[in-house]
Amino acid sequence: MFNLLSLKGGLNNVQGFYSDGVNVGMKESKDGDVAFIRSQVPCEITTKFTSNKFQAAPIKHYQQYPKDFKTDFILMNAKNANAMTGKKGIEDIEAIFKALENHQKVQNPIMSSTGVIGYRLDQEKITSAFSKFNYGAKNSDKTARAIMTTDSFKKELAFKVTLDDGDSFTIAGICKGAGMINPAMATMLCFITTDAPIPKSDMEELLDEATENSFNRISVDGDTSTNDTIMLLSNGLSNAYHKEAFKIALEKITFELAMMILKDGEGATKMVAFEVKGAKSTQEAQKASMALSNSLLVKTALFGEDPNWGRIASTIGASGVTCDETTLTIHYDNLLIYSNEQRELDKEREDKAYKIMKNESFKVTCDLGVGEESYTSYGCDLSYDYVKINAEYRT
Amino acid sequence: MFNLLSLKGGLNNVQGFYSDGVNVGMKESKDGDVAFIRSQVPCEITTKFTSNKFQAAPIKHYQQYPKDFKTDFILMNAKNANAMTGKKGIEDIEAIFKALENHQKVQNPIMSSTGVIGYRLDQEKITSAFSKFNYGAKNSDKTARAIMTTDSFKKELAFKVTLDDGDSFTIAGICKGAGMINPAMATMLCFITTDAPIPKSDMEELLDEATENSFNRISVDGDTSTNDTIMLLSNGLSNAYHKEAFKIALEKITFELAMMILKDGEGATKMVAFEVKGAKSTQEAQKASMALSNSLLVKTALFGEDPNWGRIASTIGASGVTCDETTLTIHYDNLLIYSNEQRELDKEREDKAYKIMKNESFKVTCDLGVGEESYTSYGCDLSYDYVKINAEYRT
Repeated sequence: MFNLLSLKGGLNNVQGFYSDGVNVGMKESKDGDVAFIRSQVPCEITTKFTSNKFQAAPIKHYQQYPKDFKTDFILMNAKNANAMTGKKGIEDIEAIFKALENHQKVQNPIMSSTGVIGYRLDQEKITSAFSKFNYGAKNSDKTARAIMTTDSFKKELAFKVTLDDGDSFTIAGICKGAGMINPAMATMLCFITTDAPIPKSDMEELLDEATENSFNRISVDGDTSTNDTIMLLSNGLSNAYHKEAFKIALEKITFELAMMILKDGEGATKMVAFEVKGAKSTQEAQKASMALSNSLLVKTALFGEDPNWGRIASTIGASGVTCDETTLTIHYDNLLIYSNEQRELDKEREDKAYKIMKNESFKVTCDLGVGEESYTSYGCDLSYDYVKINAEYRT
Repeated sequence: MFNLLSLKGGLNNVQGFYSDGVNVGMKESKDGDVAFIRSQVPCEITTKFTSNKFQAAPIKHYQQYPKDFKTDFILMNAKNANAMTGKKGIEDIEAIFKALENHQKVQNPIMSSTGVIGYRLDQEKITSAFSKFNYGAKNSDKTARAIMTTDSFKKELAFKVTLDDGDSFTIAGICKGAGMINPAMATMLCFITTDAPIPKSDMEELLDEATENSFNRISVDGDTSTNDTIMLLSNGLSNAYHKEAFKIALEKITFELAMMILKDGEGATKMVAFEVKGAKSTQEAQKASMALSNSLLVKTALFGEDPNWGRIASTIGASGVTCDETTLTIHYDNLLIYSNEQRELDKEREDKAYKIMKNESFKVTCDLGVGEESYTSYGCDLSYDYVKINAEYRT
């Protein structure tokens, strides 16, 4: 039906999109701290924003545009979230875009910020980027690095999709994550570009679905930030579009970016898939699965590589879902670790469980045995470094 | 109206109650691991158990007794929760009490356990305590130590209440807590004894209220165990009872025990009261307050002594309650740290905030400014030691 090929790099692969990142002195490292993504023609855009009631100024600025507006420019910065900054925060963005006019012609520019909450942007520093940017560059690497905060590696991906008739489109994404990641999307920014000419209604439907199956299923620490943003931009420069092919490519890019964020969870040393099945409803499966990926006791047991299934069982029991200790089974990968008939962990199974837990990733499957529904979420362990990073962040 | 006097020690102060703790080889320290509380006459008893669906065997055993049964004996053990042990777990308790008959005459004995989930009790070790116990002892200290798990200090309290007519009653409590403490009561055991002749209906009403205002307001890590238990035992040997006086004494004992648990939260270095006021409803105030005491980002900021009010604001915004950044104010103790007019933290206020955060305890007050209701919960910070204790527990 179609062929999906992974490409090197990220945003640089998509025709008509340009991007660059520069350092204006906000980050101490040599990585950039201000970046842009622009398109040579105005783009259709669909976004998903944080559910936090205190949405940051860039989100409020975006919401001032009329429905179905087109844009050709996104400005990003790290180190300052421009959140809890009130009207001044929005005026600062307007002043910054006013200053941009002397350097680059743009249509309905958008800003996206990440960093500390509660301080106004340093307009002087940010606008100093405008004479440093190469507006014709395809520097996806520098762009992805510029939005990093506590991330330890940059996150970019691209795919080329060739349809049966030989026509093709490209889709690419960059994102930043690390701390504060939770089911309802926490401080993460994600920008996805494509040249496929997607109908606006498909964009919204497919981004909803893809987000639900990726970013909304991962949890680093259960907190939700003021700035979370996922943007999908389409400039329509390719003539190839096929809904099912685009859906698969978009789901692949969002899922893989989400896994990169989880892998880079602050201080995380391992990733675990928590599948809850046999639940009364999908909602209950999700509730129990999310309780597992958010539980501090489960997370520290993972870090300690302790096959203490009691914490898994206790967390399910505490989650409030319908369950029964006589129908419950727990597996680590394919190893049965608890069932009504086989409760205590003997030496042989304990040794096997230790081996599984030493892996960088594995799966915990809890079959509640009371229904037919299932849900899988993805979590990571909680290490000393999580505390270190978060106790020391900012200061 | 009445006089409330704090006494040294704990359960030993209440007439007609005896207790002792011994080590039968389950704990490596010299502290006991099996203990009892008994009364010379049968007691009225009221209990609150965990909301975890997988209630441990001792709780199921208790629930087999008819409503309004009286008891004169509670057996406690550490190191093994007797949870997720199925029918065998209950049969083990019955066998243990059968063995007790050769040593001590008891009526409707109750068991209460804490420790690892998923393993059957070692009957031989536990019953070996029966010939070691001094059934006439008033060893509150040894009893309180025997139920400790990751607790770093024993928790006991006692008050004598003298009414205006000169009659008096005594109330005392011991508890264990440390890890897994959360709003819906996690692995904590608490035993309160009194000689006041309280009507059963008052016992239930007052224990409900006292629990709501104490143990249900503290959070160490948001997890809820399979074994949580609060028991109030009254042997009626005093002739003094006054509802209001008893209510105040019970609230005082449960609140102070709850604060001891929080202070001893695994790895905790400071305690913080999170008052949310100006909320639309008490439910919303509670939701926001609990979100603060459970947030990993808030907890690590407390440990780092970083006056990063952005994390406080972000957590409130993410909690889903009605709020607005223009009506919100945040105080640390009496220091205004955020308001619509005063957003950025200047050097002077930042220095003052640092000083407050260096204290072992302080108060964070968030006025949402959208209503009249309030709620206060109590939390602690999250330190390296929390991760260490929980990664290494059991192994």
